[in-house]
Amino acid sequence: MMGCVPASASPDPRADAGRRPIGVFDSGVGGLTVLHELLVQLPQEDFLYLGDTARFPYGERSPEELARFSSQIAEELLRRRAKLLVIACNSATAAALPILERRMMETTLGVDVLGVVRPEAMQAVAATRSGRIGLLATPTTVASGSYERAVSSVDPHVTLQAVACPTLAGIIQAGEQFDERAVDSVREACLPLREADVDTVILGCTHYPLIKPMLQRMLGPSVTLVSSGAALARQVEHALSTRGLSNPRQHGEGDYRFLCTGEPESFRELGTRFLQMPLGEVERVELQSVEALA
Amino acid sequence: MMGCVPASASPDPRADAGRRPIGVFDSGVGGLTVLHELLVQLPQEDFLYLGDTARFPYGERSPEELARFSSQIAEELLRRRAKLLVIACNSATAAALPILERRMMETTLGVDVLGVVRPEAMQAVAATRSGRIGLLATPTTVASGSYERAVSSVDPHVTLQAVACPTLAGIIQAGEQFDERAVDSVREACLPLREADVDTVILGCTHYPLIKPMLQRMLGPSVTLVSSGAALARQVEHALSTRGLSNPRQHGEGDYRFLCTGEPESFRELGTRFLQMPLGEVERVELQSVEALA
Repeated sequence: MMGCVPASASPDPRADAGRRPIGVFDSGVGGLTVLHELLVQLPQEDFLYLGDTARFPYGERSPEELARFSSQIAEELLRRRAKLLVIACNSATAAALPILERRMMETTLGVDVLGVVRPEAMQAVAATRSGRIGLLATPTTVASGSYERAVSSVDPHVTLQAVACPTLAGIIQAGEQFDERAVDSVREACLPLREADVDTVILGCTHYPLIKPMLQRMLGPSVTLVSSGAALARQVEHALSTRGLSNPRQHGEGDYRFLCTGEPESFRELGTRFLQMPLGEVERVELQSVEALA
Repeated sequence: MMGCVPASASPDPRADAGRRPIGVFDSGVGGLTVLHELLVQLPQEDFLYLGDTARFPYGERSPEELARFSSQIAEELLRRRAKLLVIACNSATAAALPILERRMMETTLGVDVLGVVRPEAMQAVAATRSGRIGLLATPTTVASGSYERAVSSVDPHVTLQAVACPTLAGIIQAGEQFDERAVDSVREACLPLREADVDTVILGCTHYPLIKPMLQRMLGPSVTLVSSGAALARQVEHALSTRGLSNPRQHGEGDYRFLCTGEPESFRELGTRFLQMPLGEVERVELQSVEALA
């Protein structure tokens, strides 16, 4: 199923395996904050990012739809020789991570799939001294209880104060993170976290790193902020080195390229602000229907 | 001289002293990256920022001019009851810090003045493990030798590899930090630092924190980047607590306001990108000529 990569694309799957890119995907540009951290922490690696902008947002989609979309995207990234997959999207991680993990492990390639949520939970539990962690996320993510489960599976004695932020991701996506409305939203979101006296806060939405300075200021300098990208970078590094798949590049940085299912030009414009680095070429891609793969 | 604050503005200089703002100044918007760090690290403090945009840039001015400009600005900030002054500008620090320090200490207010350069040198020396530090700065700053002197006064056994970047501040100020020309400039600047195998790099220009992710990626994740703002925040905190001048605010954040000598609207537009936080009101200010003060 997932592993049927054409023989022509990869004559010997182990040959030169470390030089293959890491595949990262999301429903849109939000996951670029995750890619940003990966580019900084793993400069020697090549990356291939796919934003499913034609079907953005994923928030209100059914788990079945998201599992299907994620499978299509994974197939596309594997076709382009990804050596590891990162799901840089909360909704897709919740809906599709176990399915993709199982499929990847069934293939001869044995490609690892890492999602958000669990790496952040692990890093937050490691960072907290008081045992009181906060979470800022979209209402859907908070309602899913995925961070509660992840945190308590790492340490059942740690408490999680979750705050649903209905407007924040939209404000950031619209580029309005520096206006008064944004400040009020962020202040409102921080209030229950301050009252709960948390010492560590998980940024449970890929958009939130763009307002990290404001959050840090409102929560106070002693609070540790944990974002998906930084937490994932460690796990990606560990997974690659365990499998002997680290890129052997000694000098210079790797390259990074972009695919999207919607309009490339708007992806580029919006994306630069999220990546906070130069965004090179963006290629429009047609995903094969998952039925064709079954 | 500098301390002749009108009696009406401060009937008792010690009363409620901690509630007075911290004054920060620069030739333009560059110092807002310093203010950014101060806002994040010292959220309980109030700040008053003055950008001398009408006389920007300071780079080619004579030391005498800069000492005069800095004195005028210091006087304006003291008139507005600043409890501590931060010179968030390399050129002004080099030209005016000793003069301002002396003047401030002669007054009854005893207001501390902190500049860039020395705090970064101290933090870089504390951070390096190999004893090899790099410096990125404008040609004028590199030529002044101020960082070399500051580093060797902290630890004469530490070596400093300085790289003059003639175009970088201009590229960043023009908002072109994400284009190919910027990437090439940054890569070129990083090359001698990589060759010198430094483990710590001083960002010796207030504009450079805006390209920190790119620098971190090109220098590698194990290199520590030291910027003026983060280094200054510690010293400001220390100076205030030593003098019993920390703001006693317990809850919420302090406010921050802006003065500029040029056009307020262009200051606000450019400033938001440098502050990376909402920029509130900007007031145009006429500085008194220093002759009138003498």
